[in-house]
Amino acid sequence: MKKESSYQSLVTTFQRLSRFSHLSSIASWDMFTMMPAGGSAARGEALAELSVLQHQILTDKKVAEWLRNAESEDLNDVEQANLREMTRHYQQAALLPESLVEAKSLAGSKCEHAWRTQRPANDWQGFSANLKEVVKLSREEARLRAEAKGCTPYDALLDIFEPDMTSARLDGLFGDLKSWLPDLLAQVVEKQAQQSFVPPQGPFPTAIQRELGLEAMKTLGFDFNAGRLDVSAHPFCGGVPEDVRITTRYDEEELLSALFGVIHETGHARYEQNLPRNWLGQPVALARSTAVHESQSLFFEMQLGRSNAFLTHLLPAVQERFGSQAAFTPENFIAWNQRVKPGYIRVDADEVSYPAHVVLRYEIERALINGEIEVDDIPALWDEKMQAWLGLSTKDNYRNGCMQDIHWTDGGFGYFPSYTLGAMYAAQLFSAAKTALPGLDAAIAQGDFSALFDWLRQNIWQHGSRFTTAQLIEQATGEDLNSRYFRDHLTARYL
Amino acid sequence: MKKESSYQSLVTTFQRLSRFSHLSSIASWDMFTMMPAGGSAARGEALAELSVLQHQILTDKKVAEWLRNAESEDLNDVEQANLREMTRHYQQAALLPESLVEAKSLAGSKCEHAWRTQRPANDWQGFSANLKEVVKLSREEARLRAEAKGCTPYDALLDIFEPDMTSARLDGLFGDLKSWLPDLLAQVVEKQAQQSFVPPQGPFPTAIQRELGLEAMKTLGFDFNAGRLDVSAHPFCGGVPEDVRITTRYDEEELLSALFGVIHETGHARYEQNLPRNWLGQPVALARSTAVHESQSLFFEMQLGRSNAFLTHLLPAVQERFGSQAAFTPENFIAWNQRVKPGYIRVDADEVSYPAHVVLRYEIERALINGEIEVDDIPALWDEKMQAWLGLSTKDNYRNGCMQDIHWTDGGFGYFPSYTLGAMYAAQLFSAAKTALPGLDAAIAQGDFSALFDWLRQNIWQHGSRFTTAQLIEQATGEDLNSRYFRDHLTARYL
Ligand SMILES: [Zn+2]
Ligand SMILES: [Zn+2]
Repeated sequence: MKKESSYQSLVTTFQRLSRFSHLSSIASWDMFTMMPAGGSAARGEALAELSVLQHQILTDKKVAEWLRNAESEDLNDVEQANLREMTRHYQQAALLPESLVEAKSLAGSKCEHAWRTQRPANDWQGFSANLKEVVKLSREEARLRAEAKGCTPYDALLDIFEPDMTSARLDGLFGDLKSWLPDLLAQVVEKQAQQSFVPPQGPFPTAIQRELGLEAMKTLGFDFNAGRLDVSAHPFCGGVPEDVRITTRYDEEELLSALFGVIHETGHARYEQNLPRNWLGQPVALARSTAVHESQSLFFEMQLGRSNAFLTHLLPAVQERFGSQAAFTPENFIAWNQRVKPGYIRVDADEVSYPAHVVLRYEIERALINGEIEVDDIPALWDEKMQAWLGLSTKDNYRNGCMQDIHWTDGGFGYFPSYTLGAMYAAQLFSAAKTALPGLDAAIAQGDFSALFDWLRQNIWQHGSRFTTAQLIEQATGEDLNSRYFRDHLTARYL
Repeated sequence: MKKESSYQSLVTTFQRLSRFSHLSSIASWDMFTMMPAGGSAARGEALAELSVLQHQILTDKKVAEWLRNAESEDLNDVEQANLREMTRHYQQAALLPESLVEAKSLAGSKCEHAWRTQRPANDWQGFSANLKEVVKLSREEARLRAEAKGCTPYDALLDIFEPDMTSARLDGLFGDLKSWLPDLLAQVVEKQAQQSFVPPQGPFPTAIQRELGLEAMKTLGFDFNAGRLDVSAHPFCGGVPEDVRITTRYDEEELLSALFGVIHETGHARYEQNLPRNWLGQPVALARSTAVHESQSLFFEMQLGRSNAFLTHLLPAVQERFGSQAAFTPENFIAWNQRVKPGYIRVDADEVSYPAHVVLRYEIERALINGEIEVDDIPALWDEKMQAWLGLSTKDNYRNGCMQDIHWTDGGFGYFPSYTLGAMYAAQLFSAAKTALPGLDAAIAQGDFSALFDWLRQNIWQHGSRFTTAQLIEQATGEDLNSRYFRDHLTARYL
């Protein structure tokens, strides 16, 4: 009997891990969409038990040995990429002592849980006490990862979400944004102050909003044989590539937030549904990164969904379900969906002011993790940056300031940049698609997205994690990430 | 540091197994209620991977050692019962070589999968070829279990579902049934032939049926903070004690099948929701047996649900939702819900003819597993027994004869007796409750079930698997299982 290669042993092990991830994904989806409150403690324990198991399997010393040996085995291109990703997953898991993983998970749960009531109570005092513990442990994590990687602590965390991204690179990209975005934003706000908008008149019954969402998903190519749409307090895209579960939430006074939420998650979903089928279960078949994932949702929601052509195509479906209103003239419908209105809350932000929210968080979390500031410094910095970017004061308004996001509560430092990286990737990809596909706008206005989606499938979806993000973007667009496309996009749409 | 006792090590291990069971239960529930078809293959693989893991943990040789050592440790009553149940679970899993488990699982999946199309096609030829393989492997399983237990092969399978039950005992119980039930059934049919029934007129919209079902669940004490009602092709009660998931299916032409399905599953659910909280996660906290579980659902559906008192209480809720109809006089509503109509299909049977379906299956599967008959003998035997019991011929009608159930397709021999054991336990329990609770009928007619449910909680639910079934029933009713109560119940209700 031929001895199994180390690579083959790894493939078997990661296949097994992926099956356990499947169960974890579905049980998590259920937790947010279906589970009654009384099931919460038992579910938490069950998921934690599974996660301990997954960690044990992944960090088994045989895995380390196989990874070493596989380096010198005869592997084709895809296998080499798979081995690179396996190594990355292994190192991410194995670098931290179990005691730290456990302590961080406990401190994170505690902080997040308390935050749910502290935020509405505007209780910075209570929150910051918990956050300090989370920051302490995240700094320890960052230090260990940074030592192994030879980089700054913050960059070591960034790498988890967007491999190969560095803060030096981000400083360049975001520095560029900072040089033109505040001006552009001011101009747009001034321009829109001249316009008059007619707001759509509710109520918009949930059942009909859901129908409209399902219709949009269908139009956008969501495969209902391999996924579902449900409701959750915070919309997300979960499940597994073979069965993608997206969610939204409905507000009967609001026509468009649920719908554009659905369109956003459909972008995530189509990426998942079109990951390379014959490598499924292997790390190389996973989505490239958080930012690339977000680029797909923003491609759907912002590049495509809020374009004049798409809104024109969408309007009849809206009228058919909600009757005719003064708000439903083509001009007003488009204008209403392209309103720019700087505000306190990131998740409610339009695409022009969104980067302000991200860059300020990036600057604060980087300084925090690198030990240049402390938790107590956050509120003043937040206020100062909000004033500078958006002219809004968050003094003593922690609830709508530095306490508004869940990310830091359980130590998710390094995640925020993905949102704006995603927006920039999306703009660059859309521009490349437009160049590659003459007549795209006309096709979109007629509801024909097939060429556009084929282009995404060929350039992004089908590659999974085969290439680095830089390679992926360069192959798709002919150059590395360039914030010019985002600027061009905002300028063209809003000025 | 004090060395952990073997018993304590077992507790930790079974706790862990229970957390994995939690995930398996929820993922299975999802599979039958939520999952789109495209997710099926990946889900199957994920569940199989988990089941391999659970089998490995349970049959680890350390477990055997702990079980041996714990025998001589100082344990209180509950711990001793828990150890007895742990040992039973271990032996059930460890007795079979893995090759047999795998072969049986493969043959079962193959047979079941093909059966889904073979049954509608009435294809006995195709089905029996697969069934022969399943029977061969089930016989092998029964032989190994019987050797270890020192009993007949069939009894060894019976013991999995109803511990300590034997076919000698069943022959006594079912023999008694055979001595009076055919006559009783004939008398009831003759009596009802004199009555005229007014059938309720549909359609009965699904949404309103669902409301009525939820209302019934509420009335019957279902805890919605720890469970849900959904839809599936075959109704079941799943999930975990902290989060019980029941299902039903709706037919808009049928007023009562969904509702009584819900009432049935609510009986299962309340048992699960009221298992002993402080032992949850341990085998001693599990429901006693398949038959005791069924006794609870039949207690709700048949003893309580189809009683004159309950139907009287239910009627206004039906009228409120579906208007007034000729069918909704108290007399007709009760008569309609107590119709007796012998037919081919077990799952559609009323409670008077149901035992015929069970006893004939019991006699056939026992002879099959003990090697007294072969698969090819089944159709003729089925026909003969159906003729004898219900006067119906199933000649060449495999679809509505021996191919109607899923149980045998994957080797679930030994399960069928649970249904009629459950009906008999339910009758005996209800009779004891009536004796213990004066004025019960009046309370039921007024929708006050609190005393009845307290009685069930104290006598059945809270004990989990602490006692053997015989002990449990004797403590609750003052005697061991006695089919007299079932006879008295049927006589009182139907003659
Ligand atoms: Zn997103
Ligand atoms: Zn049942």
